Amino acid sequence: MGRLDKPQDPLFRRINTSVGFDQRLWPQDIDGSVAHARALERADVLTSEELTQMLDGLEQVREELSAGTFAFSDDDEDIHMAVERRLTELVGPLGGKLHTGRSRNDQVATDFALFVSLSAERALELTQALMATLVEVAERHANWTMPGYTHLQRAQPVYLGHHLLAYFWMLRRDALRFQAARNSALAEMPLGSGALAGLNWDLDRAATAEDLGFEGLAANSIDAISNRDAALDYLSAAAICATHLSRLGSELVIWSSQEFGFAEAADEFASGSSIMPQKKNPDAAELLRGKAPRVVASFTTLIGVLHALPLSYAKDLQEDKEALFDAVDTIETCLAAAERMLAGLIFNRGRLAEAASDEMLAATDVADLLVRRGMPFREAHGVVGSLVRKAVESGRALSDLTREEIAAESEHLDEEYYEVLAGEHWLESKVSVGGTASARVAEQIETARKALAALERE
Amino acid sequence: MGRLDKPQDPLFRRINTSVGFDQRLWPQDIDGSVAHARALERADVLTSEELTQMLDGLEQVREELSAGTFAFSDDDEDIHMAVERRLTELVGPLGGKLHTGRSRNDQVATDFALFVSLSAERALELTQALMATLVEVAERHANWTMPGYTHLQRAQPVYLGHHLLAYFWMLRRDALRFQAARNSALAEMPLGSGALAGLNWDLDRAATAEDLGFEGLAANSIDAISNRDAALDYLSAAAICATHLSRLGSELVIWSSQEFGFAEAADEFASGSSIMPQKKNPDAAELLRGKAPRVVASFTTLIGVLHALPLSYAKDLQEDKEALFDAVDTIETCLAAAERMLAGLIFNRGRLAEAASDEMLAATDVADLLVRRGMPFREAHGVVGSLVRKAVESGRALSDLTREEIAAESEHLDEEYYEVLAGEHWLESKVSVGGTASARVAEQIETARKALAALERE
Amino acid sequence: MGRLDKPQDPLFRRINTSVGFDQRLWPQDIDGSVAHARALERADVLTSEELTQMLDGLEQVREELSAGTFAFSDDDEDIHMAVERRLTELVGPLGGKLHTGRSRNDQVATDFALFVSLSAERALELTQALMATLVEVAERHANWTMPGYTHLQRAQPVYLGHHLLAYFWMLRRDALRFQAARNSALAEMPLGSGALAGLNWDLDRAATAEDLGFEGLAANSIDAISNRDAALDYLSAAAICATHLSRLGSELVIWSSQEFGFAEAADEFASGSSIMPQKKNPDAAELLRGKAPRVVASFTTLIGVLHALPLSYAKDLQEDKEALFDAVDTIETCLAAAERMLAGLIFNRGRLAEAASDEMLAATDVADLLVRRGMPFREAHGVVGSLVRKAVESGRALSDLTREEIAAESEHLDEEYYEVLAGEHWLESKVSVGGTASARVAEQIETARKALAALERE
Amino acid sequence: MGRLDKPQDPLFRRINTSVGFDQRLWPQDIDGSVAHARALERADVLTSEELTQMLDGLEQVREELSAGTFAFSDDDEDIHMAVERRLTELVGPLGGKLHTGRSRNDQVATDFALFVSLSAERALELTQALMATLVEVAERHANWTMPGYTHLQRAQPVYLGHHLLAYFWMLRRDALRFQAARNSALAEMPLGSGALAGLNWDLDRAATAEDLGFEGLAANSIDAISNRDAALDYLSAAAICATHLSRLGSELVIWSSQEFGFAEAADEFASGSSIMPQKKNPDAAELLRGKAPRVVASFTTLIGVLHALPLSYAKDLQEDKEALFDAVDTIETCLAAAERMLAGLIFNRGRLAEAASDEMLAATDVADLLVRRGMPFREAHGVVGSLVRKAVESGRALSDLTREEIAAESEHLDEEYYEVLAGEHWLESKVSVGGTASARVAEQIETARKALAALERE
Repeated sequence: MGRLDKPQDPLFRRINTSVGFDQRLWPQDIDGSVAHARALERADVLTSEELTQMLDGLEQVREELSAGTFAFSDDDEDIHMAVERRLTELVGPLGGKLHTGRSRNDQVATDFALFVSLSAERALELTQALMATLVEVAERHANWTMPGYTHLQRAQPVYLGHHLLAYFWMLRRDALRFQAARNSALAEMPLGSGALAGLNWDLDRAATAEDLGFEGLAANSIDAISNRDAALDYLSAAAICATHLSRLGSELVIWSSQEFGFAEAADEFASGSSIMPQKKNPDAAELLRGKAPRVVASFTTLIGVLHALPLSYAKDLQEDKEALFDAVDTIETCLAAAERMLAGLIFNRGRLAEAASDEMLAATDVADLLVRRGMPFREAHGVVGSLVRKAVESGRALSDLTREEIAAESEHLDEEYYEVLAGEHWLESKVSVGGTASARVAEQIETARKALAALERE
Repeated sequence: MGRLDKPQDPLFRRINTSVGFDQRLWPQDIDGSVAHARALERADVLTSEELTQMLDGLEQVREELSAGTFAFSDDDEDIHMAVERRLTELVGPLGGKLHTGRSRNDQVATDFALFVSLSAERALELTQALMATLVEVAERHANWTMPGYTHLQRAQPVYLGHHLLAYFWMLRRDALRFQAARNSALAEMPLGSGALAGLNWDLDRAATAEDLGFEGLAANSIDAISNRDAALDYLSAAAICATHLSRLGSELVIWSSQEFGFAEAADEFASGSSIMPQKKNPDAAELLRGKAPRVVASFTTLIGVLHALPLSYAKDLQEDKEALFDAVDTIETCLAAAERMLAGLIFNRGRLAEAASDEMLAATDVADLLVRRGMPFREAHGVVGSLVRKAVESGRALSDLTREEIAAESEHLDEEYYEVLAGEHWLESKVSVGGTASARVAEQIETARKALAALERE
Repeated sequence: MGRLDKPQDPLFRRINTSVGFDQRLWPQDIDGSVAHARALERADVLTSEELTQMLDGLEQVREELSAGTFAFSDDDEDIHMAVERRLTELVGPLGGKLHTGRSRNDQVATDFALFVSLSAERALELTQALMATLVEVAERHANWTMPGYTHLQRAQPVYLGHHLLAYFWMLRRDALRFQAARNSALAEMPLGSGALAGLNWDLDRAATAEDLGFEGLAANSIDAISNRDAALDYLSAAAICATHLSRLGSELVIWSSQEFGFAEAADEFASGSSIMPQKKNPDAAELLRGKAPRVVASFTTLIGVLHALPLSYAKDLQEDKEALFDAVDTIETCLAAAERMLAGLIFNRGRLAEAASDEMLAATDVADLLVRRGMPFREAHGVVGSLVRKAVESGRALSDLTREEIAAESEHLDEEYYEVLAGEHWLESKVSVGGTASARVAEQIETARKALAALERE
Repeated sequence: MGRLDKPQDPLFRRINTSVGFDQRLWPQDIDGSVAHARALERADVLTSEELTQMLDGLEQVREELSAGTFAFSDDDEDIHMAVERRLTELVGPLGGKLHTGRSRNDQVATDFALFVSLSAERALELTQALMATLVEVAERHANWTMPGYTHLQRAQPVYLGHHLLAYFWMLRRDALRFQAARNSALAEMPLGSGALAGLNWDLDRAATAEDLGFEGLAANSIDAISNRDAALDYLSAAAICATHLSRLGSELVIWSSQEFGFAEAADEFASGSSIMPQKKNPDAAELLRGKAPRVVASFTTLIGVLHALPLSYAKDLQEDKEALFDAVDTIETCLAAAERMLAGLIFNRGRLAEAASDEMLAATDVADLLVRRGMPFREAHGVVGSLVRKAVESGRALSDLTREEIAAESEHLDEEYYEVLAGEHWLESKVSVGGTASARVAEQIETARKALAALERE
């Protein structure tokens, strides 16, 4: 190309050619070319007859690519060249005019931004679907009791619905991030920035932006072609979302153990063992857990590529695509799999309730009883700590301690101590906004539904 | 504490104690405690006299911490315990009531969110200052010519002001990210979520949120205490910003080489060599380049900590602080240093102009000349490629080729070929929006000023 | 310094000065200076009187630094300048001769390599101590039965000692990596490479290397001063080791849950809750789990700094130190804490045995029974799968299935089926080398002891 | 499989199935199966006739896979199942016996270790080839002068051959790391560890290890199946090697700029521009620079997957393969491309020499002149710094300063000052071992050749 006359070394061609992976951008490339052709016609570079001919040619290329009948040539360095090469086969020398007022640099940046925006939109939809399922599953289990954990130690009883809704709010923040990434991708159209300095033609960039769905124009041609920020926004959102899902996966793996016995995957979402016939493994949950580092790695790959990179375009930027594509495929599969797995998950009400009935979980409530009777919290905490120690050391439950024993720790402890431990009201006492009391969970489900509807309206 | 009666192993205490680094959160801890005390009074847990006494105590603690006279005790596990311990020394047993309706879990999450919001605000301000300097420096050098580069090869001439403004737009996106991180930190107040399940007290969380500047309440107590998303948002923004700065640093290092000779740091921002007396090293630019991976690493540390972590609170979350603090310090120093260094940078107009006068940079314009005369762009590109090859191989400039030689490549090439190469208008021909033509750069400076003002109004 | 005559900007000084953290290298700096002074004397740059005077001066500096009485000056840019400045105060202009035939570049690289070697040696010792404790704890619990897990599902019974020894072998590989990192750090002495090109003096580098404990000389002066590979070797070893410890931490967190109830931290290695008096949290195990990403981040920081960095020395390399120091401190604390925590850990024999007695764990043995009777393994696996399904669906144990029911699945199933399920021999049947049968575990403990002794002899 | 009777959900199957990528392990899987079949025969599980039949079947499977005629079935979950399924089609029920005394867990770990060892061996060979080319190119340019750089500022002159050899020594350390990774992969054969607890059969593991090329046996069955350390060793080596290559790539990009003009890629290793006909872009060098973060990301992916993962096997470990495969392909391509590109690189002797003749580079030598005349180095450094400042400020070269001017700075400065600056001996004065003096470079080339031969003998 240009001044070079020797053919590329086969090894170099292999490392340099990107059509093997960037062909995935063909829908965006054709959309961008259509919009650019229109701009050329508006600027009288193409006659309206030429435009018609060119659009017909582009539509045929689109059909071939869509149908899988497009014949790639060995000389197609990237999808952009492949499309233009085929177009020229179809419409003759006119095809060569399409690259007027355009460079591969702004073309690639535009196609990539459109792909990011589409991927963010799709991730958003999958996140919403998972959020909807979470609300539904949470509502179905709104009043099932279970222990809440800190440090994976039983801490205070909560409702299973409440616990599950924690993931709803993580995912809502993810959804907002995917929205922001989509908006970031559409904020500044690179097309019209040329190789790096702008164009010799004053094309109507604003009209092209409207054609393609961009909200505005890149204000600086140099920045435009070396900017991959929207992809970083997407990858950061995807990495955080994948990490949220890894927490869900990790919990489900633990809950599926025989020791916890809280949950069991549907058979359709489990696998057996090649050697141990009794096994039912929570593979889907494990994969949710195990795939997060890979998505994080796509973020670090792209941000690493950009590290110390002089402006404007450099070949290093070709490394943006595979990193993004892998993250897109991974997060989409994870979101969809999480939704399906969760919908089919079977919880064990008895095991959950049994674990939640552990008297130790009422310890804070005993302390609160003392506070209500005027003791500063720190002191109450100490008193109850002594009671727990006494119980643990003598192998008894808290309610096995005698009236004398409890009175010896504090004069404020009387019959109500046993009532608190009997504890139907442990959960219902958590009445603050966002707490686990039934009324609050019901309120929260309502809020969640509204938040989801607000997202969907966007 | 609680049921444990043996003292902690010294080694465990060392790994477990966080006061060495989390004392940095003291302003947020006291603000949070003041707001919580007010909530307790509104809920009649404290009388108004007790509230007054407690607030007086907290103000005294604040003064001691602010003045550096606060005496930490060996038993202060973290800043939260230290503040409460000192408060109790000052106000007696009343101090113990402050922890009513609060847990260290929601307290820590709240302090941390406030710190993230403050850090994002500060990063935003430093970014704005750098943006302002960039506009000013760009305007001062608006019409200095230089080569624009792709692949670090001279590509097309641009104005230095145009090149510098590329960084303005990167930083504007960073500013928007820091804004988003600040808003994310203030979106959902964790306080009132208790240890994990909510509170036995229906405190007026909305009033407390207003006191502290939060926009809303965490809707789920379990999520609230295990949520570190705002810190991830900040760290992602800081990592991308640091990477932008690494590109600036990398360019300035290259421009400061004797071979480029485009720029020279002010003496105040350079250093010498312990052995080579002639050296003037662009250390500040190198540090901008070299510090980005460290900020990225803070992001990967925190997201790595969250990977596969069961809900709700776990001690692992203590690892959020040092990662964040290091990133905050690093990005703040980088932004401030970039601003000062840039303000004092000396550009070499002659070297820039000489490099820009390389005739090869007009090759695209010669191709465009052919396009205007009806040749499809691809064909024109090939013709000019041949001319370039002929010139390079014979060691001549493009304008040294004879009329016969150029006509031999295309009948469309005539005297205007030499005029295009003479090239005053190379830059001025880049007339598209965002291009490097003077009028477009002037327009861009205007747009940049408005964008900056819009940020500042927020 | 050199040609620069304006003082550094305070902000630049802050970013540029490294004495705040690199002072940690003082022992290496003084060792290196002593060895270099000797080389200067051998080369007749110093007289033997001057050498004596200089070594006396350096010893005094060492004492001041060791005692904490060394007075740093505001102008001390780094520890290397501080030592030389103080030396010159003590011995007069003679101090200025120490930098003959040396540059800060080769000096820093040498100090840093010595520090890496020392850190690797210390990590190796801590790893050995942990390995020794693991063998001891494993031997104490050699015949305690527990379920072995895959997918965190009970799979086959193993001995607790066998499970614990899995960590021994991970740590042995870590120990070998720390050895390799130490050897890597000592393989090529940078000193004598000058600023980048070598020295004008043919100092006897080999003698200096012997003084300092290096095995050889850097063969290329340019590589020598920009080489940070040994630090990468250390960081890679530390990251892998920290990740191994995170697996141990994660298991102990899970085992400490009430649901598993397999293990309990000693009180000295646990913490309580500020609000829940009953809590005993496995904080040390959580920190082992949570600190791995931070060590990995030190590796990615340094390798990120080196990315795309032109030779030879660049200021970016200053970022090597804090990343390394943080990893050194973290891995040393983790190794020591793991050792202490493990030594005090209390296992619950009853809970472990009860979990191991789950009949399902014998399913593979039933399949093996069928294989011994001539059925291909795949078919046997299918037969037992059917039996398990039948048992699970009817809520029975495998041994509750009747003679008729089992015979219906395969004619090869008879009384021995029940004997296999009764299962004393489940564990003892795992007789292959490395298996869990008692004799094999005893053999393994022996092998472990020998492997440890072999390490210690190094 | 086993107790599960419902078919897998299609989405789950997609996420769970690995045959799409792990089929790459087929040669290792067949090698492992052959060795295992032999072990079964030695243990009388197979008769010698059965063994023959099975080996014939396996060879046919190998041929089909090698020829690309192997027909994968939709039910082939992974390559291991596919091979066994096909074997059973070929040899009947006998095929089902192959999985006796083996589990997919130890089978996968074994295949993977063999693949790591092979990959390390191949990376080692490619590294050696690049080292050989470096020595050759360095020798060809052994006496070409160029400036050596620190901070990308000209520092001291060196020979191009010396500079290029810096990369030789980096790569030698990489080669040693690849050797270590290979040895690590072959150190402990997992086969014979069963699902996690060992086998019910005392197969002769040592004989199988010898068949497969392993040096020893995994000593603990649980560790064996969850151990991915060798892959981490490989990935760490590959990440460091890729980062070394990124430094080479970065230098070549800078050297190829018009401003430096030191080097030019062969046409076969460069590309043009779609819009600028004059461009010759150093794409191969840019890709070397840009691909390092991707290889680092494979390391962080796998170490991230292992973070906090309970023993023994978990599905998360399936994420080991794609991360490794991508790194293997990337580093192999980079090493091969670097070798080819370097072999064809054209250096510009004139530009290099001109840059090296910059008098400023002699500043250190002037200082050394003063030292030889008795002035302490620090003082001499100050004197020369003043001379440089005087020259720079008056726009003159150092040799343009008059006798009076230089004498005014120091009485020690006389005619020899001008001789030092005339400077033929600048380079030749760097006589220390590893320095750039010709004799030392010649010695270094000799050492390099020996080091390379020592590697090749391994």
